[in-house]
Amino acid sequence: MLTLRRLGIDTYRENVAFLSRACTAYRPEDFQALDKIEVFTGARRILATLNIVDDPAVLAPDALGLSTRAFARLGLAEGTAVEIVQASPPESLEAIRAKIRGETLEERQLDAIIGDIAAHRYSKMEIAAFLIACASFMTTAETLALTRAMARVGGRLSWDAELVVDKHCIGGVPGNRTSMIVVPIVAAHGLPIPKTSSRAITSPSGTADTMEVLANVDVGVDAMRDLVRDAKGCLVWGGHVNLSPADDILISVERPLGIDTSEQLVASIMSKKLAAGSTHLLIDIPVGPTAKIRTRAEAVRLRKLFEYIAVHVGIEIVVLLTDGSQPVGRGIGPVLEARDVMAVLRREPDAPADLRDRALQLAGHILEFDPELKGGAGFVRARQLLDDGSALAAMDRIIDGQGRAAAPSALGNRTKKVLAQRDGVVAAIDCYRLARIARLAGAPTDMGAGIDLFRKVGDPVAAGEPLYRIHAQIAADFKFACDLAETGSGYTIDDTGGGR
Amino acid sequence: MLTLRRLGIDTYRENVAFLSRACTAYRPEDFQALDKIEVFTGARRILATLNIVDDPAVLAPDALGLSTRAFARLGLAEGTAVEIVQASPPESLEAIRAKIRGETLEERQLDAIIGDIAAHRYSKMEIAAFLIACASFMTTAETLALTRAMARVGGRLSWDAELVVDKHCIGGVPGNRTSMIVVPIVAAHGLPIPKTSSRAITSPSGTADTMEVLANVDVGVDAMRDLVRDAKGCLVWGGHVNLSPADDILISVERPLGIDTSEQLVASIMSKKLAAGSTHLLIDIPVGPTAKIRTRAEAVRLRKLFEYIAVHVGIEIVVLLTDGSQPVGRGIGPVLEARDVMAVLRREPDAPADLRDRALQLAGHILEFDPELKGGAGFVRARQLLDDGSALAAMDRIIDGQGRAAAPSALGNRTKKVLAQRDGVVAAIDCYRLARIARLAGAPTDMGAGIDLFRKVGDPVAAGEPLYRIHAQIAADFKFACDLAETGSGYTIDDTGGGR
Repeated sequence: MLTLRRLGIDTYRENVAFLSRACTAYRPEDFQALDKIEVFTGARRILATLNIVDDPAVLAPDALGLSTRAFARLGLAEGTAVEIVQASPPESLEAIRAKIRGETLEERQLDAIIGDIAAHRYSKMEIAAFLIACASFMTTAETLALTRAMARVGGRLSWDAELVVDKHCIGGVPGNRTSMIVVPIVAAHGLPIPKTSSRAITSPSGTADTMEVLANVDVGVDAMRDLVRDAKGCLVWGGHVNLSPADDILISVERPLGIDTSEQLVASIMSKKLAAGSTHLLIDIPVGPTAKIRTRAEAVRLRKLFEYIAVHVGIEIVVLLTDGSQPVGRGIGPVLEARDVMAVLRREPDAPADLRDRALQLAGHILEFDPELKGGAGFVRARQLLDDGSALAAMDRIIDGQGRAAAPSALGNRTKKVLAQRDGVVAAIDCYRLARIARLAGAPTDMGAGIDLFRKVGDPVAAGEPLYRIHAQIAADFKFACDLAETGSGYTIDDTGGGR
Repeated sequence: MLTLRRLGIDTYRENVAFLSRACTAYRPEDFQALDKIEVFTGARRILATLNIVDDPAVLAPDALGLSTRAFARLGLAEGTAVEIVQASPPESLEAIRAKIRGETLEERQLDAIIGDIAAHRYSKMEIAAFLIACASFMTTAETLALTRAMARVGGRLSWDAELVVDKHCIGGVPGNRTSMIVVPIVAAHGLPIPKTSSRAITSPSGTADTMEVLANVDVGVDAMRDLVRDAKGCLVWGGHVNLSPADDILISVERPLGIDTSEQLVASIMSKKLAAGSTHLLIDIPVGPTAKIRTRAEAVRLRKLFEYIAVHVGIEIVVLLTDGSQPVGRGIGPVLEARDVMAVLRREPDAPADLRDRALQLAGHILEFDPELKGGAGFVRARQLLDDGSALAAMDRIIDGQGRAAAPSALGNRTKKVLAQRDGVVAAIDCYRLARIARLAGAPTDMGAGIDLFRKVGDPVAAGEPLYRIHAQIAADFKFACDLAETGSGYTIDDTGGGR
């Protein structure tokens, strides 16, 4: 028997157990070669990767240390007597081996795999095996089964409404914060739109990050329900809702491996929408040479897959292909994006027209889910709700409902203007590069960090005129961002030629 | 800047870095989401997975801890000032993504992947991605390129001889310790046979484990060279030779995932033989219903792949399919197997005939690599060298050269006879099950643990007569082994019927 200890080591998503090399109750080296052990007492048990500790200051000889999250998952007190055994690999790994051999998987096999992943029975290595086996080929039936399996293992929301609308953008275009305009418009119309968003992971800001400039986004399910009842909408971080716990784990492996298949993307999004109780869904796929989806053909394939899954899980869907050729609005980074969003809602004369137009277009499509609205009337209704201040009022209700941010975050006060090297017309802006520069500047951790764009595609510019301004708070971040901008602004400037 | 500290935590094959959550020089949470960091000072750098430490007793705020092996790999003193950056994923991951998309890889891409793996730039998750991408399909040209890439990153042996022979068994049959008889026979004939072997990983004994009962096997390359010059052969552990460091890393992921493709197996073996400077090679593929290769068709496909690779890397090869339907010899476990081997070499009357016959068959094929021997004369020559004591004398030279074991290890003194449940004839013995029982009994860690077989396939047996005896040292191991034997001895006993 070993004595349980919580080791203050955060191994992120992987359960890690620590055993002293001087352990007398077990032979550490025998276990380590096997890579994974089961820690248990009675019926409580978790799987964990084993690390061996040589330093008695870190762990006593007959103690069993667990990383912070593994300790929480096991849910026993420090000092509890625990045992360990060689972990038998999850049985569902057999299905993955079948997939590798070229078989297609049935729903019950995908259920078993996703159940084991959600229960933290898979190591990252095993998750990678699953993802790669699926990446080489996956039928639409498998994608559907995967979507259902992923929805099943998470929480599930239900709403007292026949029509619950939602929107989702697959991302990749900086500044594209349409949700923060669409949600108040749709809520002002009276359609329930309980929007959960993610925080940025590799981008300079997620909708949750930008919304956090204005309001608390750390909202539980009950408060969310109250909000949707009272204000018809919300803009909260999805972290509490736990809609697709397996997906969160899958993403932690997909991202570093750079696996980005349509099937995984669609299953990930649709499982969350299914679990969120959405009945009607708008998907926004920006297409552009530096966006996530680069060609129209690719976008159309993705659209068809979304439609197939939606039909089969019973969600009404509209998939729009939008312009992803350059950033949307002027700001990139939480504070700057929130500024743009509020400028549109407040109908300020210099509010970015592209952000406004796009939000109206999307909101219009969502409003047409309302059977009361005549076909084609959605856009006009959306514009009306924006122009008459109803959307702004709805946004104020949502902000107050979630909890208004105490003080507005300041813009980063280290600034640098990046200048045009030549005369001409802006021909292209590299979304990916600008996102990286904004990210290096400190966004989204520093809410005030980011990029403020002065020129968009089609604008004329003279050599020496500013293209954009970098904002940062921390000296090192500022330098990294400026250095990257120095090696390439991300702007392509062409001859004005015969004029355009 | 951070201060380097060696944390006494052995994370096995993966580099792990530890950073305090209270770190002021960096933002731990930013780095952790990225999973991998680069730790460096000047030109010295390693990649590592990042864990965050909450316990100040484990790590001070501005220290950077490294797991024991990562610390050794970086090769800097404790207290050195180091920096960290987000690690860019190895560029060769791009080739893996291409492979996932269905492309075939060129030699330079496989070179880059294997180089990065050998340099510990891949996490287990990334290695799994590579292995699974290859497992779904791999051309023979890719297998060849992989073999060459794996041979290239390791050490390389060269010998002052035109003919350097070697043998390799793909394993899966307990007690099959022919190498320890073949090597002395071949050495006695005068052909250089520098045999390196592995220790058991999932089996109850590897050749290195069994040889260690008799002699030191922990021999460096220089001593090995002296041995081969003086005694013409050796039987050493391959751990010092570092012939295929990438393979050792790949195996640490293949095993827990249960990936076992022919392509990986052949590339693994042939890369080591290529690096070992072998010119002529005998491959032994045991075929049997409970062995690694279960059908003749599978064995023939594997043979053809071995032959293809051998031709292209310039190694002369003979591939034999042998009987893998039951254990070879009587002992399973280091001490028991060493007893069988020495009984054959010493020409004891009760030496196991199947082990002797098989070793002679294999040695005969190897001896025929000698251009001086007439076709078909190899077996006779092998038998002559065994019968006239030359092989025993050669084994004594090899044992003395490597360093004779001080005291012979004792057989485990906890014993249990497993009895036949009925009268009849032994129809089958489950290799896999007996290996598991012997392993549970403590083999190979306890050299004296294992199984001593009293009956083989075809032997008559009466109910209540012993089939085999379990030997163990440690009470818990003994119980586990006996428990498993209780649920099924691994023997199938059929009616004697009208005789066989």
